[in-house]
Amino acid sequence: MSNIPVDPIALTADLVRCPSITPEEGGALVLLEGMLTKAGFACTRVDRGGVSNLFARWGAKDAVRTFGFNGHTDVVPLGDEAAWTMPPFGAEQKDGYLWGRGATDMKSGVAAYVAAAIDFVTETPPKDGALILTITGDEEGDAVDGTAALLDWMEANGEAMDHCLVGEPTCPDELGQMIKIGRRGSLTAWITVTGEQGHSAYPHRANNPLPAMARLIDRLSSHELDQGTEHFDASTLATVTIDTGNPASNVIPAQSRATVNIRFNDAHSGASLTEWLQSELNRVEKEFGVEAAMDVRISGESFLTPPGELSELVSQAVKAETNMTPDLSTTGGTSDARFVKNHCPVVEFGLVGQTMHQVDERVEVALIPRLKTIYSRILRDYFA
Amino acid sequence: MSNIPVDPIALTADLVRCPSITPEEGGALVLLEGMLTKAGFACTRVDRGGVSNLFARWGAKDAVRTFGFNGHTDVVPLGDEAAWTMPPFGAEQKDGYLWGRGATDMKSGVAAYVAAAIDFVTETPPKDGALILTITGDEEGDAVDGTAALLDWMEANGEAMDHCLVGEPTCPDELGQMIKIGRRGSLTAWITVTGEQGHSAYPHRANNPLPAMARLIDRLSSHELDQGTEHFDASTLATVTIDTGNPASNVIPAQSRATVNIRFNDAHSGASLTEWLQSELNRVEKEFGVEAAMDVRISGESFLTPPGELSELVSQAVKAETNMTPDLSTTGGTSDARFVKNHCPVVEFGLVGQTMHQVDERVEVALIPRLKTIYSRILRDYFA
Ligand SMILES: [Zn+2]
Ligand SMILES: [Zn+2]
Repeated sequence: MSNIPVDPIALTADLVRCPSITPEEGGALVLLEGMLTKAGFACTRVDRGGVSNLFARWGAKDAVRTFGFNGHTDVVPLGDEAAWTMPPFGAEQKDGYLWGRGATDMKSGVAAYVAAAIDFVTETPPKDGALILTITGDEEGDAVDGTAALLDWMEANGEAMDHCLVGEPTCPDELGQMIKIGRRGSLTAWITVTGEQGHSAYPHRANNPLPAMARLIDRLSSHELDQGTEHFDASTLATVTIDTGNPASNVIPAQSRATVNIRFNDAHSGASLTEWLQSELNRVEKEFGVEAAMDVRISGESFLTPPGELSELVSQAVKAETNMTPDLSTTGGTSDARFVKNHCPVVEFGLVGQTMHQVDERVEVALIPRLKTIYSRILRDYFA
Repeated sequence: MSNIPVDPIALTADLVRCPSITPEEGGALVLLEGMLTKAGFACTRVDRGGVSNLFARWGAKDAVRTFGFNGHTDVVPLGDEAAWTMPPFGAEQKDGYLWGRGATDMKSGVAAYVAAAIDFVTETPPKDGALILTITGDEEGDAVDGTAALLDWMEANGEAMDHCLVGEPTCPDELGQMIKIGRRGSLTAWITVTGEQGHSAYPHRANNPLPAMARLIDRLSSHELDQGTEHFDASTLATVTIDTGNPASNVIPAQSRATVNIRFNDAHSGASLTEWLQSELNRVEKEFGVEAAMDVRISGESFLTPPGELSELVSQAVKAETNMTPDLSTTGGTSDARFVKNHCPVVEFGLVGQTMHQVDERVEVALIPRLKTIYSRILRDYFA
């Protein structure tokens, strides 16, 4: 094996050049599989439902400690392609940035930990230690056949991590600002209120669903779910749409629909919120004599890796390399940490996420080797 | 002039055979103009904005009393033509009914009063009396160039009625049940609430217009406008639609729209209701920091011809011919009486309106001559 360190900037560029819009693998996982295999990792492609995923292990299954990295190589669509300043799969450098879709979210993060992991096992192979890298091609899509598939496969094959770091961009403005130790849960309810159609001149002969809908949404919107908990911001509810589609001003409609999205902390669960919503639906049913029904989807429960060994390890490494004490945060949208948390303690740390999912996504070039250095220190300290 | 009475059933059939879907004249006004001219009426076609209308006078302009009839020969579209049992312009008789679009609303009514008027001036021409018939081809459409155009023309030409009867179908179930002496007004407001778009995970960074819209609609819907007045039912407000059109459950929309229709009695005016709505819009603007705007259309103010000489005259005639004492009602949607009321006292009386605007519109044949008889008695009593 070579002793030349892996260049995470060149690797980021190579990955950005792979057009891996979900569910396209785009060559990204093939590239990583080749590098990791060459560096002594045992690689397995775990493909499911038309999605490609990569499992890579270094070290023995019965190692005393196994550290994991998780991330994704799939990227969101380009948006308005004509609006890009630089080719979105070009990985060109300009003004100190490397430009392209996935540059921030999160090919640079994957490149940084793959580079750190290869150098680490090459230069200072840990005795009694093992590394597992799980890299998915389905984080930006439905995520049902991505990290979840990898974890299912691991369980079936006796593979386990003791701790895991997800390399998503977590810092709002500056590298080192924020580690994520949990996430709020997310629940979406599609609500239908049904009454009886009629003529708007004779409302007493109809049963308009809209007053009931308005009352319901007013109540849901003005209800305080909580004021935040020890590690979480307050839960929030957003009514994202109310629709009826009745063009006739002399007709009372039979039905109206609304969609409500709740981001909730550890004071709630998907089940407890479903119960609360149902009770509010029942209440307007009684008050207005309408039918109120809903479909609920819980896309993730809230979760927390309480501050402890793992967050301490990552914090110390971040502090040593950036001189910043990172916040232990639970803000933001969902990530694959929501799957990993069922498997082992998990935290997330990575770059500044400012341009992710946008046209002209780009990453500050100088930050990529700094992130690799932080990940390297985490590995060194973990196995010390 | 002939002494053979005009057959209102045959005339109804002739009119139904004219395909006079608004704004098509369809031959109906031409037919009536010919008959009325032959019977000694001075006819003038008052056409405006692509719509045909007919003005017919019998007697001198300086007559002591002038009685008017108003009605329309235009009809609503056929709806699902294939669903008609009988040809919609066939005027065929079956099961005691004469079938066709406009059979009820209101070619039979026009036929009955034209027949009554011709017979009356032929058999018992009133001394010092005059008759004016105004028949429009734009009642079912926008109505801006129909009866309104006739009244404008009359004003410009020194033509005036002392009292007017509109021959619309007014009876819910049985001939003789109901005279209409006024109508509620109608106001429609198109409301827009504008906030600021954002991500549903961060509602505090956005300004969701939907909680404000829900509160507003809840308040409007649960507000009691009044409990009815001497001659009117309670005013009603119907929210007919709320629409946002946001398909993304993770996006807070920037704007939502709602439409509200108010049917109001003489405790309100279009202006007073507009002011009230505006004050409620201002209230949620302040409470939620949103922008709330509306477009208002007042399609008719409420009006009343207080019970008196005209309603008494019509009631007596109805009672004499049907043995029923008709209700003096202000229920129902708008009609051209809303224009005539600015000109002279006006009431409405006509057939049973059950199949109007529906597929298989039809009129009970036996009722047509009975209606003519009532109209004849009204003329006789008026000029007695
Ligand atoms: Zn990501
Ligand atoms: Zn009509």
